[in-house]
Amino acid sequence: MKAFVMKEIGRVGVMDKPVPRPGPGDAVVRTTRALICTSDSHTVSGGIGPREDLTLGHEAVGVVHEVGSEVRHFRPGDRVLVGAITPDWGDPASQNGHPSQSGGPLGGWKFANVKDGVFAEYFHVNEADANMAKIPDDVSDDAAVYCADMLSTGFMGAEHGNIPIGGTVAVLAQGPVGLMGTAGARLRGAGMVIGVESVPSRQKLAQRYGADEIVDFTKEDVVERILELTDGAGVDTAIEALGADATFQTCVKITKPGGTISITGYFGEGEFVRIPRVEWGVGMADKTIATGLCPGGRVRMERLLRLLEARRIDPTHMTSHEFPFDEIERAFEVMDKKLEDVVKPLIVF
Amino acid sequence: MKAFVMKEIGRVGVMDKPVPRPGPGDAVVRTTRALICTSDSHTVSGGIGPREDLTLGHEAVGVVHEVGSEVRHFRPGDRVLVGAITPDWGDPASQNGHPSQSGGPLGGWKFANVKDGVFAEYFHVNEADANMAKIPDDVSDDAAVYCADMLSTGFMGAEHGNIPIGGTVAVLAQGPVGLMGTAGARLRGAGMVIGVESVPSRQKLAQRYGADEIVDFTKEDVVERILELTDGAGVDTAIEALGADATFQTCVKITKPGGTISITGYFGEGEFVRIPRVEWGVGMADKTIATGLCPGGRVRMERLLRLLEARRIDPTHMTSHEFPFDEIERAFEVMDKKLEDVVKPLIVF
Amino acid sequence: MKAFVMKEIGRVGVMDKPVPRPGPGDAVVRTTRALICTSDSHTVSGGIGPREDLTLGHEAVGVVHEVGSEVRHFRPGDRVLVGAITPDWGDPASQNGHPSQSGGPLGGWKFANVKDGVFAEYFHVNEADANMAKIPDDVSDDAAVYCADMLSTGFMGAEHGNIPIGGTVAVLAQGPVGLMGTAGARLRGAGMVIGVESVPSRQKLAQRYGADEIVDFTKEDVVERILELTDGAGVDTAIEALGADATFQTCVKITKPGGTISITGYFGEGEFVRIPRVEWGVGMADKTIATGLCPGGRVRMERLLRLLEARRIDPTHMTSHEFPFDEIERAFEVMDKKLEDVVKPLIVF
Amino acid sequence: MKAFVMKEIGRVGVMDKPVPRPGPGDAVVRTTRALICTSDSHTVSGGIGPREDLTLGHEAVGVVHEVGSEVRHFRPGDRVLVGAITPDWGDPASQNGHPSQSGGPLGGWKFANVKDGVFAEYFHVNEADANMAKIPDDVSDDAAVYCADMLSTGFMGAEHGNIPIGGTVAVLAQGPVGLMGTAGARLRGAGMVIGVESVPSRQKLAQRYGADEIVDFTKEDVVERILELTDGAGVDTAIEALGADATFQTCVKITKPGGTISITGYFGEGEFVRIPRVEWGVGMADKTIATGLCPGGRVRMERLLRLLEARRIDPTHMTSHEFPFDEIERAFEVMDKKLEDVVKPLIVF
Repeated sequence: MKAFVMKEIGRVGVMDKPVPRPGPGDAVVRTTRALICTSDSHTVSGGIGPREDLTLGHEAVGVVHEVGSEVRHFRPGDRVLVGAITPDWGDPASQNGHPSQSGGPLGGWKFANVKDGVFAEYFHVNEADANMAKIPDDVSDDAAVYCADMLSTGFMGAEHGNIPIGGTVAVLAQGPVGLMGTAGARLRGAGMVIGVESVPSRQKLAQRYGADEIVDFTKEDVVERILELTDGAGVDTAIEALGADATFQTCVKITKPGGTISITGYFGEGEFVRIPRVEWGVGMADKTIATGLCPGGRVRMERLLRLLEARRIDPTHMTSHEFPFDEIERAFEVMDKKLEDVVKPLIVF
Repeated sequence: MKAFVMKEIGRVGVMDKPVPRPGPGDAVVRTTRALICTSDSHTVSGGIGPREDLTLGHEAVGVVHEVGSEVRHFRPGDRVLVGAITPDWGDPASQNGHPSQSGGPLGGWKFANVKDGVFAEYFHVNEADANMAKIPDDVSDDAAVYCADMLSTGFMGAEHGNIPIGGTVAVLAQGPVGLMGTAGARLRGAGMVIGVESVPSRQKLAQRYGADEIVDFTKEDVVERILELTDGAGVDTAIEALGADATFQTCVKITKPGGTISITGYFGEGEFVRIPRVEWGVGMADKTIATGLCPGGRVRMERLLRLLEARRIDPTHMTSHEFPFDEIERAFEVMDKKLEDVVKPLIVF
Repeated sequence: MKAFVMKEIGRVGVMDKPVPRPGPGDAVVRTTRALICTSDSHTVSGGIGPREDLTLGHEAVGVVHEVGSEVRHFRPGDRVLVGAITPDWGDPASQNGHPSQSGGPLGGWKFANVKDGVFAEYFHVNEADANMAKIPDDVSDDAAVYCADMLSTGFMGAEHGNIPIGGTVAVLAQGPVGLMGTAGARLRGAGMVIGVESVPSRQKLAQRYGADEIVDFTKEDVVERILELTDGAGVDTAIEALGADATFQTCVKITKPGGTISITGYFGEGEFVRIPRVEWGVGMADKTIATGLCPGGRVRMERLLRLLEARRIDPTHMTSHEFPFDEIERAFEVMDKKLEDVVKPLIVF
Repeated sequence: MKAFVMKEIGRVGVMDKPVPRPGPGDAVVRTTRALICTSDSHTVSGGIGPREDLTLGHEAVGVVHEVGSEVRHFRPGDRVLVGAITPDWGDPASQNGHPSQSGGPLGGWKFANVKDGVFAEYFHVNEADANMAKIPDDVSDDAAVYCADMLSTGFMGAEHGNIPIGGTVAVLAQGPVGLMGTAGARLRGAGMVIGVESVPSRQKLAQRYGADEIVDFTKEDVVERILELTDGAGVDTAIEALGADATFQTCVKITKPGGTISITGYFGEGEFVRIPRVEWGVGMADKTIATGLCPGGRVRMERLLRLLEARRIDPTHMTSHEFPFDEIERAFEVMDKKLEDVVKPLIVF
C-alpha cells in the first residue's frame, strides 16, 4: 500500500509498505478521509526527535478492513472514526483518569509517533473496541474526521476551563484547535466568547463558531481590550490555543482571580514557558493553569459524533483545501508553509 | 402601596401596606415586572405553614427606589434584577458553598416566606450589593424577570447534572423550570436532550428551547422509550422538574450507572420519596442524586443576564399571559388552577 | 483443585475443579489468604439469583501461578493482591470514569458472580496487568487481603462523601466496611468521626480505627444525639454502611444542608429505599446522595498497599477468626450466622 | 494602646494609637497571642509598597472587647480566633467561591495591608460574625493562633493538591507553611509524604508532622531522588511552600502526568516564574498548577479548631521562641534575620 512518510528529519515522501495486520484486540482500517495537522509539520521538522520512514498523520476515518480475534464490537465494513490518541486503557495513568498519558507523558499519542500514522491506504488501531467509534449514517466522513483531534482537543480546552454558565471566555488564536475552543466555550454555555485573531478569514470563522467579540492583536492591546470588555474583571477562562510563551503570558494577565487558564497548544520552543509573576497574583490569586492532551477513546468519539448528528456544529467550514491522497505531498506543503490562507487540508482516499 | 397577599391558608387578596424602608445594607425596589410561580400556589395552600397578610411573589425586576447607607454598588434609578433567593452571604452555609441554605435548610428563600414578597408596588432587598444586579440596556424587563428563578433553577438542574459535552439528558416535565432545564442542558453541550411532556403547547416550547426528542408519557412507556433512544444505555443525566415520586422513580430507572439524577422540583407530598432499589443498583451503581434550591446573588444574576444580552436564549416565549398588577387576583387564579394552557403569567406594574 | 462453591441457592460445599488457565491477558493465582464477606452469604441465599457450582469468594491474595502471553507486568512467583472488582478497562463505563460499572450495572464484579471466585486453591484474573498489584515485602498477606474489598469499599465511602478537612462525619454501622469507612474518614482529615454501633466489640474496633464518638442506637436516639454532637448543624457527611432503609433514612436526617450521604452498603431488601421527604429539604436542601461499588484495579490496590506499608492503618484487628481452607465450611457458617462476635474470618491456604 | 508598626519601608517601631471602634457588623478584639510571619518581613522590606505607621501582623487570637450593633454571634468576653484573611463575603469573588480574592486579587488580605494589623493591644475585625470563631475551652490560645494562617495555608496546599488516598506527595521546604503542608498531606490520606529540607531542626519537625521521607537538597539531587522514591513515576502532588522559581521548577519536574502542583508560597522576586517546558509535557501532560491565598472565615476556622480539639495535630511544636509584647521588636528581628534556628516566634500579650 502507499504511505506518506517522514523519511528523516526535514524530508517527507510517499513509499510502499505492507498492509498492517491486527493483533488479537486490534483492527486495521482502510482510510477514507484524513486531515493534516500542524503537529505533522512539527514532527517532520524534528519536534519529537528523529524518525525513519514513519507514516505521518493522526486524524482519519475509514472502513474496518480486518479485526483481531478478540474484537467484539466491530466487524469489517463498519464505518469508523478513530481518535488521534489511542490509549492503553488498563495502564495506571488511564486508571488514574488520564488515559492520554498512558504509558508515560503523552503516551496515548501513538500514531506517527511510536507507530505508523494514518496517511496510508490502511492503518492499524490498538485496542480497537475501546478506541474506535461507529459513524452514524447521517454523519459524513468529511465531518466525522474532525472529531479525531480538532473537536476533541478544542473542546477539552473549554472543559478544562471550568466555564460557568454565562461566564466569560477568551480564546487566544483561532487556528482549527482555537476555533473548536471557541465552539466548545459556546457549548459549555459561556455568556461571552472573545476570539483573539488577526487573520480576517479566521476571524470570520471564529464568529461563525461562536465568538461574540474579536480582538485583533495587531490593532489593539489584547490585555487592555479584554479587561475593557469584561468591565475590568478579566475573564473566567482563558484558552491558550497557540502554544507560545507570549500568548500564555497574556492568558495569565486577562484571567480573573479564581479563573482558569486552559492550555490546548503544543509549546514547541524555548527552555521555559514564563508566568508573569505579578499578574499571577504572586502565586496567590487562585488562578489555575490546566493542561491536557486530546482525549481519545470510543466514548469520547461517540459523544463528539452525537454532536454532529444533532447538528450542534458543522466542522467542515474549516476545510479550506481538499486533495486526493496522491497529491498529499502538495497538501503537506500547503499546511507546512501555511500557504493560501490554509486552515485544514482534507485528504480524500 | 398595594400588595397582593396571602391573608391566611387558602385565601388571597390585595391590601394596603406601607412602603418598606431599607436597613444600612438593604435596598427598596419599585416593582416593574413580576412573574407568578407555582410555588406561590403551594404557599397559599399551606405548603410552608400558616402566614398572615404575607405579600406573595419572589420573581421580580424593578427600579431602585432607595438604598441604605452602606450600599455602594447601586443607586436610586438603577434598573435591577433581584434573585428569588437572597442569601446571607456571611452565613456558615454560604461560606461552605451553599448560600441558598444560609440560615438553615432553604433559608436563602426569604421572599414570601419569612418576609414580604415582590407582588407589591415596592419590595425590600437584604444585602443589596450582593443580591441585586443591574439590567443591561438592551435586555428588557420582560425577559430579565425570568432570571430571578426560572433560568436560575432550571439551569441549576443542568449544572448539578454533570453533563458531559455530547452527553445524553432527559428532562422530566416541561413546565417553566423544566423548559429551562432543557435549555440549560443545551447550554452545557448535551448531544441529545429528551423532553418528557404530554401537553402539546409545552412540547412545542420544549422543542423551541432545545429538546431533540419528545416523549409523551400518556402515549408510550417512558423508561422503555428512553432506553431505546440511548441504545439501551440510559442517559448520562436525568433532570427531575416536577417534584413527584413517580417522576423521580423514572429518573432513577433511566439514568445509566455513573450518571446523575438532578432534582429541581419541589416535592410537596407524602412522607417519603422512594428510590426503586434494583434500578438504583442496590446502592452500588454509582448513580448520584443531587438536589438544590435556586441559586441567587449578584454574580449568578449577572451571568444569566449576560446570556440574555448575548441572545443565547429568549425566555419570553414562556409568557403565556400578561396582566396589569390590578388584575393580579385573576392572574393568580389562572396560574393556581392551570387555566388556559398557562405557562407563566407576567404581571406589569 | 478444591473449591468452595455454591451448589444452588441455599446450599454450599467443597468440590473438585480443574485449575483454571489464563487467556492472553490473564493470570492464574495460587491462593494464600482469603476473607469471607457478608455478600457471600447474600449470594448463597439467592441475592443475585440462582447459580450452579459457582466458586464463592472475592477477597484474596496469592502467588502468581501462570500468566498469559500478553501479560507484561507480572510473572509466576510474584506475591499479588487482586481487587474484588476486576473491571474491563476499555469498556465505555470505565472510559467514563466508572470502571466498577464496566459491562453493565455492577459489571466489574465478576468473582463469584459471573465467574468462579477465589475460595479455591487457584483462581483466574482477567486483565491481569490492570487488575493485580504486587505486595510489598514488608506487608503481610494477612493484612494485604483486606485491601481487596474492605479498605477499598470503606475508604470509597469517605472519598465519595466529600469530607472537608476538619469536617464532621457519621458512619452508620461498624461492620468491617463501616470500620474502614471510619478509618477512611480519619484518613481524609475529618475533625469529628461518629460511629453508630451497638455491639461492644465493634464499638471498640471503631474507636481503634478512629471514631471520636460512639452512638449506640439501642440506648439513645441517633438523630437527636448526632445533632447534639454537632451543635444542631448535622454532619458534613454521613456514610451508610449497612444497606438498610432505616439507616439510610437516618443518614438523610443527620446530614446538614449542602452535605453528602455516601452509600457503601448493599441494599438487599424491599422494592424501595425511602428518602424522608421533609428532612431531605423537599428536594431542595443541596443534600447529595452518592453511591458506588468497591473500586478495583492495580492503581487503587497499589495505593491501598502503600498505606499498609507506611503503617497508616492495620486492618488485621478485624480478623476475629482464622481457619485453614479445609475448614471453610465452618468458617462460612460462622460468618453466615454471625456467630461468636465474628467480624472477619480469615482463610489460610 | 501600643502598636508595633511599619513606619516606612525598612523601618519598624512601637507607637501609641487609639483603640479602634467597631462599625455595625464589626468587632474589636483584645489581643492575647500573636505570631510573626515571614510575610511581615516582606511587607516591611517593601513587598507590597510603601506604608506609613501601619500596624503589622495578621495572626492572632484574643478576647472580644466590643461588637457592633448588628453582630449576633459574638459578645464581649468571648475567646476568639480571627483568620488572617477576612473576606467581604458578599463580594462577587466570594460568591464565585474565592473569598480570599474578594475586592480584587488577594483582596481578602486586609490586616497589615489595607488596614492596621494585629500586633497591637486591640485590633478591628470586619464582618465579625463571618470572620471570627469561638475557641473551644480545651484549646489553648498558644495552639489556636496557628489556625489563623499556618494551618489554613498549609492545609490549603494539600487540599488544592487533589491528593488521592494512598497517593504520593512532596512538600518543598519545611518552613511553618511547608510543615503544615506536610501535616495536611497526611490529613488527606497520602500514602507517602516526602519533605524537602536541609535544616536539621526543620527536618525533625517535618518527620514529627508526618513526612515519611526527607530529601536534603544540599546532599542529593531532589528530582532524581524523588523519582527514585516513586519508582520513576513522580508524585501525585507537589506542594510548593517556598515561593521560589527554582523550587517551582522542581515541582513541575517531579509531578507525574495527571498530577498537581499546588502553590502555597508567596513569590516575591523576578518578573517571571518559569515553567520548565519539556518536563511540563510541552503543555500537554495533564499537569495542573493550582494557587491560592490562605482561606479565612468562621467555617474554616471552626474546622481547624476542631482538629486541635480532637488532638489531630499539635502546632505548638513550631513555636521556637516566645516573647512578651514589649519585646516584639526583638522578636521581629529574630524572624526577619532568621536567627537562632527560628521557626515561629509567639508573642504573648
